[in-house]
Amino acid sequence: MRSLILITNDDSVSAKGLQVLVDAVREYGDIVVMSTELNASGKSHALTTNQPLRVRKVRDEKGLEVYACNGTPVDCVKLAEAFFCERKPDLVLSGINHGSNASINVIYSGTMGAVVEASINGMSAVGFSLLNHDADADFSACIPFVKRIVSDVLEKGLPENISLNVNIPNLPYNKIKGVRVCRESKAYWADSYEKRTDPNGKDYYWLTGNFVCNDKGEDTDIWALDNGYISIVPTQPDFTSLGYVATIKERFE
Amino acid sequence: MRSLILITNDDSVSAKGLQVLVDAVREYGDIVVMSTELNASGKSHALTTNQPLRVRKVRDEKGLEVYACNGTPVDCVKLAEAFFCERKPDLVLSGINHGSNASINVIYSGTMGAVVEASINGMSAVGFSLLNHDADADFSACIPFVKRIVSDVLEKGLPENISLNVNIPNLPYNKIKGVRVCRESKAYWADSYEKRTDPNGKDYYWLTGNFVCNDKGEDTDIWALDNGYISIVPTQPDFTSLGYVATIKERFE
Repeated sequence: MRSLILITNDDSVSAKGLQVLVDAVREYGDIVVMSTELNASGKSHALTTNQPLRVRKVRDEKGLEVYACNGTPVDCVKLAEAFFCERKPDLVLSGINHGSNASINVIYSGTMGAVVEASINGMSAVGFSLLNHDADADFSACIPFVKRIVSDVLEKGLPENISLNVNIPNLPYNKIKGVRVCRESKAYWADSYEKRTDPNGKDYYWLTGNFVCNDKGEDTDIWALDNGYISIVPTQPDFTSLGYVATIKERFE
Repeated sequence: MRSLILITNDDSVSAKGLQVLVDAVREYGDIVVMSTELNASGKSHALTTNQPLRVRKVRDEKGLEVYACNGTPVDCVKLAEAFFCERKPDLVLSGINHGSNASINVIYSGTMGAVVEASINGMSAVGFSLLNHDADADFSACIPFVKRIVSDVLEKGLPENISLNVNIPNLPYNKIKGVRVCRESKAYWADSYEKRTDPNGKDYYWLTGNFVCNDKGEDTDIWALDNGYISIVPTQPDFTSLGYVATIKERFE
């Protein structure tokens, strides 16, 4: 039986990175795409709780069905699995995102929200991101690496609840040095909003900010990407800080 | 100098749980509230990236300023710190949420999105949730526990990047057995959407689902809550599964 691969992203159903990913992996199985109608960058793990979701069929051909949905990337994964896949997908892919989801970006990312949701629901899942925000970014160097990772995960699976966050430096193929499996760099975004005044004299605030990373570890995704490597972070959905359970226990029980 | 406490939530600025939390902690410091204009349950760690934010002043009296914002709970924390707090808050609180944020709910929760965002930005932060979804839920049993936790965290702080996810069973005060510091239960939501047909004959899908928890550990938040305890989970914002870095390294490097 051919593999069934569910693909989503957060840059919308019309994004170039999504099309590149679909083309790269069609040889590995039947594809169902459920993506967002609109850009959903920064939607994180958000769910649509208080309004109905609608689904539009975009394309239907042998081995490829494409749908667009008015919800978030997490909604896309849940809804596609529930109603648009004939069985549980063998693999869920998200991306290729236009822009980095390394380090703390993973927590804000709709691309990775979808991946983590798939892993919570017992599916193998991988998110791909290229460090280039342009709408017409050149994804060609990504393709051999995407194929290698997808074929490996289809063959061997992933441990329970573990998904992969793959970030790819914006370099030509022959400048990419290889792959590093890493931890997330500790970082944050500073100076986060600009205050402006609208034509009616009223204030508004617009998200901006600078990425601040003081984590110099050579075992991190930022180090790998800065040094010409693709970073893979094994990602899990549990926020518990096990290392602090005992300390906090002493204070509160 | 009096402490400065920033308070937010995801049930909106008019929610009863927010009012209860403000009243419970006013004695500990000056309060700035920045909450969402509308219900933002399920907004997770979402950010507003592609539209401007507006802020409305709701109330301004000695020791208490209340604002409402058209963004997400994460936006509320970032924007309040940037423009509406005279200095970095000593403590960020979120809640009291109408409904559980235990176990996997933490990843979908706007209440906890705000808390984790505060911790990423170097602030001590605590989220409170009561296991009762009613708009007029009785929060009275929560108040002594909220006061105790808030005064402890104001006095002693929290470890870097660690926040607290506090869930309170829906019981009268004298039935609450105490506090347990726990890990998140492993769980997921199954059967996640209902398909319906609108009056025009078109399909729509609405979020629903059943909470499935097969994790029977007595060190979990679900065990604590099921057995009459308040659960506190020390929470951190890093998704890396350190335990799998070596295994994945063998496969991909």
